[in-house]
Amino acid sequence: MYNIAIVGATGVVGKKMLEVLKTHNFPINNLKLFASEKSVGKKIHFDGKEILVDIVRENSFIDTDFVFCSADSSVSKIIGPSVRNAHSILIDDGNAFRMDSDVPLIVPEVNSQDVDWHKGIVSIPNCTTTPLVMVLHALKGFSNIDRVNVSTYQAVSGAGAQAVKELEDQIKKIASNQKPINDVFPHQIAMNVIPQVDSFEKNGYTKEEMKIVNETKKIMHDEELLISATCTRVPTIVGHCESVNVTFSDEVDLEKIILILEKQQGIIVRDKTDFNNYPTPLNSTLDDNVYVGRIRKDLSNKKGLLFWLVADNLMKGAATNAVQIAETIIERNKVSY
Amino acid sequence: MYNIAIVGATGVVGKKMLEVLKTHNFPINNLKLFASEKSVGKKIHFDGKEILVDIVRENSFIDTDFVFCSADSSVSKIIGPSVRNAHSILIDDGNAFRMDSDVPLIVPEVNSQDVDWHKGIVSIPNCTTTPLVMVLHALKGFSNIDRVNVSTYQAVSGAGAQAVKELEDQIKKIASNQKPINDVFPHQIAMNVIPQVDSFEKNGYTKEEMKIVNETKKIMHDEELLISATCTRVPTIVGHCESVNVTFSDEVDLEKIILILEKQQGIIVRDKTDFNNYPTPLNSTLDDNVYVGRIRKDLSNKKGLLFWLVADNLMKGAATNAVQIAETIIERNKVSY
Repeated sequence: MYNIAIVGATGVVGKKMLEVLKTHNFPINNLKLFASEKSVGKKIHFDGKEILVDIVRENSFIDTDFVFCSADSSVSKIIGPSVRNAHSILIDDGNAFRMDSDVPLIVPEVNSQDVDWHKGIVSIPNCTTTPLVMVLHALKGFSNIDRVNVSTYQAVSGAGAQAVKELEDQIKKIASNQKPINDVFPHQIAMNVIPQVDSFEKNGYTKEEMKIVNETKKIMHDEELLISATCTRVPTIVGHCESVNVTFSDEVDLEKIILILEKQQGIIVRDKTDFNNYPTPLNSTLDDNVYVGRIRKDLSNKKGLLFWLVADNLMKGAATNAVQIAETIIERNKVSY
Repeated sequence: MYNIAIVGATGVVGKKMLEVLKTHNFPINNLKLFASEKSVGKKIHFDGKEILVDIVRENSFIDTDFVFCSADSSVSKIIGPSVRNAHSILIDDGNAFRMDSDVPLIVPEVNSQDVDWHKGIVSIPNCTTTPLVMVLHALKGFSNIDRVNVSTYQAVSGAGAQAVKELEDQIKKIASNQKPINDVFPHQIAMNVIPQVDSFEKNGYTKEEMKIVNETKKIMHDEELLISATCTRVPTIVGHCESVNVTFSDEVDLEKIILILEKQQGIIVRDKTDFNNYPTPLNSTLDDNVYVGRIRKDLSNKKGLLFWLVADNLMKGAATNAVQIAETIIERNKVSY
């Protein structure tokens, strides 16, 4: 049984972490919940108990085994050292440490062995990277991957609770013929598509696009992987979609590829075009899986594959992956000792 | 001055045709409006006159110069011969004749000369093909194009007036916590993304995706062009977006490419990432142009380019292109005779 803390417990991902800990029957001894000043005193029900939300204090992490954090990078950077000092393990759902050379970046189905070299901090990838890497890892079982290009269709919950509220408010305004207001996003998101997620870098890519590029290389231990991305925000609440084009070293064999994907733990192939059955944000979320459909040969390249994926950005994209990392650490330590 | 007929005059594209004829100051002598039985007797105001909507009858096209049609393919197939027999020219916004070898498929900025071999019918391309071909044609001025892959984000108006009503109704239901109903689309479109536009073919692609592939080759006179597409429907009213990956024979020179795009008539480069200014469905519609932004080198390929485009699917994607085709025919006949 383990002592757990959640930092950012009142956010969209924090709430999902509580759900996932429960559905995974995570062996919890003690559970502490932390959030920002404005949430202090809120009561959260978990497993028949009522837990008071507090702010992080000097000794908050003493005697914790795992600290799950989903908050601003600035918060992660502050609590990182104190979690380490408490000999606890920070499992961080932010960008603060992902590319640090002494911090493993983990998708358990892909690189579980990397948790072994953690020094008190493990990062989970960006919510677009995780499902993509799950599929790419499986596809490596077919052939070497020469090149990847992806276009995303990302849900507003990836930008937090305020972003969800903004879309819902804009929808209500539109339904009653009033002018929608935008604050979280740089443009109105309802009835729109915004080809920008996070801010721009000098090379013309957004930070979100570069996260996909750099994190995928790190997780797959392949610095030479050729990969590019275009990230967009669409007016959906939950569920990131990705239209993916992969180029292999070998000619595509669809039957083999589908078998490989069906065998991969955490991936569900949903590809019955006869019944208009393929993944959408509304039918392929609220569970731990990555759903893959529209699997077909790239008409422009014999060695190319096109497919479409949807994953719940708050679950496998965040909370599920975080809890699975803690489970992986527990499991691998059992084996070791 | 010309005698004009519009078939499908009460539909979303038909209404736009009236707008575009007006803003283009198209030299109209007489204007006849046709629609299905249920619209007979409706009055439409155009240029200070009131015009009664009728159904197409045996002699409807006698003395017309141009018949614009935006209706079901079945309607186009019925009226095609009678327009020909009346020595009029059908400019058809449907799939009925696009791939026929004796029917030119026209985007005037790209292949205006092809109108010269029409035999009474000219087709306009699918609303996703037209803006893509506009940009590809311009890019050929930089280097030979080896390969194209595109992922679309298509607005519901592409599926007609009932589809627009369906999204608006679903939005209202969601805003008042009721269950949305779907009828036009195979799944709920509000708060969702549907990776299917039109029905599926045996090769796993949708008809819409194959339209992009086949129409692009025909318009560009390049049967060997390597091109593939993924088409999706997103909850927007107007404005199709496309995330495009082009591979050239030469290494990308961004400066040259942007200059070429800026010079192309009908294309507006909107790419000021410093100001979060790029095309979105809400800011790059309601006019005749194709807007291009997010122009950058493909990180996975020195000869690759990534860009994002938005065009009004009812205007350049349909009505504008139709009217421009008539203008092109008039202009080229002036030159010839």
